[in-house]
Amino acid sequence: MKRRSFIQNTTALSAGLLLPTSPQYSNKSQLKIAVIGTGLRGQGHIDLLLRRDDVTVVATADPDTRMNRETLQMFKDRGVTAPKTHTKGNRDYLRMLDAERPDAVIIATPWKWHVEQAVACLERNIYVGLEVAGGLSVNDSWQLVRAQEASSTHLYFLENVCFRRDVMAVLNMVRQDLFGELIHLECGYQHDLRGVKFNDGKTPYNSGVDFGEKGYSEAKWRTQHSINRNGELYPTHGIGPVAQYININRGNRLTHLTSMASKSRGLHNYVVNHPKGGEDHPSAQVDFSLGDKVTTMLRCHNGETIVMHHDTSLPRPYSLGFRVQGTKGLWMDLNDSLHIEGTSPTHRWESDEDYMKTYDHPLWKKYAHKAEGAGHGGMDYFLVNSFVEHAKRVERPPFDVYDAATWMAITPLSEQSIAMGSMPQAIPDFTNGQWTTTPSTFAVSDEY
Amino acid sequence: MKRRSFIQNTTALSAGLLLPTSPQYSNKSQLKIAVIGTGLRGQGHIDLLLRRDDVTVVATADPDTRMNRETLQMFKDRGVTAPKTHTKGNRDYLRMLDAERPDAVIIATPWKWHVEQAVACLERNIYVGLEVAGGLSVNDSWQLVRAQEASSTHLYFLENVCFRRDVMAVLNMVRQDLFGELIHLECGYQHDLRGVKFNDGKTPYNSGVDFGEKGYSEAKWRTQHSINRNGELYPTHGIGPVAQYININRGNRLTHLTSMASKSRGLHNYVVNHPKGGEDHPSAQVDFSLGDKVTTMLRCHNGETIVMHHDTSLPRPYSLGFRVQGTKGLWMDLNDSLHIEGTSPTHRWESDEDYMKTYDHPLWKKYAHKAEGAGHGGMDYFLVNSFVEHAKRVERPPFDVYDAATWMAITPLSEQSIAMGSMPQAIPDFTNGQWTTTPSTFAVSDEY
Repeated sequence: MKRRSFIQNTTALSAGLLLPTSPQYSNKSQLKIAVIGTGLRGQGHIDLLLRRDDVTVVATADPDTRMNRETLQMFKDRGVTAPKTHTKGNRDYLRMLDAERPDAVIIATPWKWHVEQAVACLERNIYVGLEVAGGLSVNDSWQLVRAQEASSTHLYFLENVCFRRDVMAVLNMVRQDLFGELIHLECGYQHDLRGVKFNDGKTPYNSGVDFGEKGYSEAKWRTQHSINRNGELYPTHGIGPVAQYININRGNRLTHLTSMASKSRGLHNYVVNHPKGGEDHPSAQVDFSLGDKVTTMLRCHNGETIVMHHDTSLPRPYSLGFRVQGTKGLWMDLNDSLHIEGTSPTHRWESDEDYMKTYDHPLWKKYAHKAEGAGHGGMDYFLVNSFVEHAKRVERPPFDVYDAATWMAITPLSEQSIAMGSMPQAIPDFTNGQWTTTPSTFAVSDEY
Repeated sequence: MKRRSFIQNTTALSAGLLLPTSPQYSNKSQLKIAVIGTGLRGQGHIDLLLRRDDVTVVATADPDTRMNRETLQMFKDRGVTAPKTHTKGNRDYLRMLDAERPDAVIIATPWKWHVEQAVACLERNIYVGLEVAGGLSVNDSWQLVRAQEASSTHLYFLENVCFRRDVMAVLNMVRQDLFGELIHLECGYQHDLRGVKFNDGKTPYNSGVDFGEKGYSEAKWRTQHSINRNGELYPTHGIGPVAQYININRGNRLTHLTSMASKSRGLHNYVVNHPKGGEDHPSAQVDFSLGDKVTTMLRCHNGETIVMHHDTSLPRPYSLGFRVQGTKGLWMDLNDSLHIEGTSPTHRWESDEDYMKTYDHPLWKKYAHKAEGAGHGGMDYFLVNSFVEHAKRVERPPFDVYDAATWMAITPLSEQSIAMGSMPQAIPDFTNGQWTTTPSTFAVSDEY
């Protein structure tokens, strides 16, 4: 980094910190949004945006013909003006950004495009919502931070599980001191993705054993990560909620981690045992690096420990495996139970059902009816609503570029740790010390 | 180690390996047993021994007056001849060993005496059952191994949870390939011991905040380990059963581990908030080293990973936290559920209730009626029965000195890892290569 750009960045940093948090700065009543990536996830966002009267989806960028056709059909079905499509190759999104000048952009592309596209938005001072993923390198994180600090707008890291109803009720419990001082947390991504990583090239789920050029949707690109990489490949659905519970980058920070991976069997077995696969199928000749179970332990400046579970290649029920444990008790989502000292029967679990009602977050109480039918049990409604409302105000988001950088860095650091026999890896302080003073802004009111 | 003792040891090793596994070697119909340590755990063993007609408890050794009185009362209540008591200090057990020449000894003393006492038995060729604990050092493990290899008899490591009914049913499932090739396991010791580590000096549980000289039973000595040490202090109830599932030291072995500890709050808070404690109580001035939650990841030669949870200082329900996961499915004890591909509903948990009945281990089917009323849900019956039957035959036990050495080493290695910021630690091969050929003998029949 050259000295001049450093000075520019630090100046922009101060500006970026002060201006957008001021409510006078901006509050558009109508937002022009563009979407980069019109795959299934992008279509989900567009579906939610089209239900709103404060948003116009003005443009999309994606080279995939089938996905574009399906997207345009959504506009047609709703009788809404079609967006301008930008389909001429992977970098036609740049033409879109410069030609359409949208107020905000949502990025829902394959992981390898995330950083380049988010940086392009930040460089143009376009408010950007970036879909979640792990980073490809620690440098990915630094690139985002540098781009943010040189920009006058913000990056909203689109972590939807922070808005899950039970996750938010537990946040409410944490803030009301039900669990006391937090000590240990667990989370992860335990989701049998075998039927996602392989398909028949036409139907996205559970339809075959092809991937890459022959695959469709995520099988087209996501599977390759399981071939090349061995680590905690998808950390954000776990660490996002946990970061809210223990104020990561807001009075606390992740200091180091160590990861361990099991052997790899699940993906290969899936291909071999599938009716469309077998020992001789080309996909059966592939060597998958990703261990079937990757476990990561992280430690925090304030003394908490976190265990993360990555488990996507074996037959199993979906579970993010949350555990929130403090000096007064703990909650676990696997058995939907908690134990609170002095309230629960001694040494016994208690169903969390009544607690979930009592501590239902004000946001959910207010908007549950609107969230009905939205993706992932309604939480995507809250995510998109929060994104739009923050973008209208050009406001610093609850999950900002420093959170994105920190959470994304878990992936390459866990890969490094595994490659080095579980050696601990330091987690950089991407905030450069700001974590000591930055306040939490997530879900502090029932506004958005 | 000097060359001569090496040669002696290896000769003894060969003898020790061949002779005792031969059924002709010995099969006493009546066993004279001595017990070192007549605390609450020793009394539990004596209670089970006194119910048998193939055993005479001939002697005890313990300097504690109250515990000795209580022990003798047990014999009186049953109308059984009192044992010879050896109460003259901590090393009166040596006089007992030499004077009484028991056929077998059970050691149930505070942890720091385990190795010295077990070695003394092995040196005298007395079959020894050693209560479980973590080692104080890796050298503890080597001492046991060297003593075993110079002895003509055996050390039985008394891990009772291997005999838990659900644990054995799952072992049955594992051996019948229900879960496929095992990939990942979890276990641990999650037990709120605050009311054990502190008491009023008279009543063992939940009676006060004293410990050490002022404490009673485990509070007398166990609490000091939480002051001096930070690590996986009690690994065997977790690793014991897991070792059976993945054949540790029997075709597989633990290669390395890394540990991470949270901050320490629970024990201090307990003292401060207890009606008999408070900020000014002497126990509130103590600095506890033990993190409230210690997590350890271990890796195996055959590619499995293990996560161990140590969690004894916070309010919580008891849970050993088992997870047994393979290429075909997984079981977890927290939600008493499993998922088996092709049998369970896709992506859904299924109650393990019917499976536990179907796969009930033949040993439990045969002896459940005898186990009724025995400690820890009946499993102590199976443990003591197995110990006595192996001792009668001077037979190599299912959990032998190499298992003891390996499992115990987890404790000091986890302490080292934590002290070094979660650096991975190699786990020695205490079998010196024998793990490749030693067969599993645990629960292979319904005999004992």
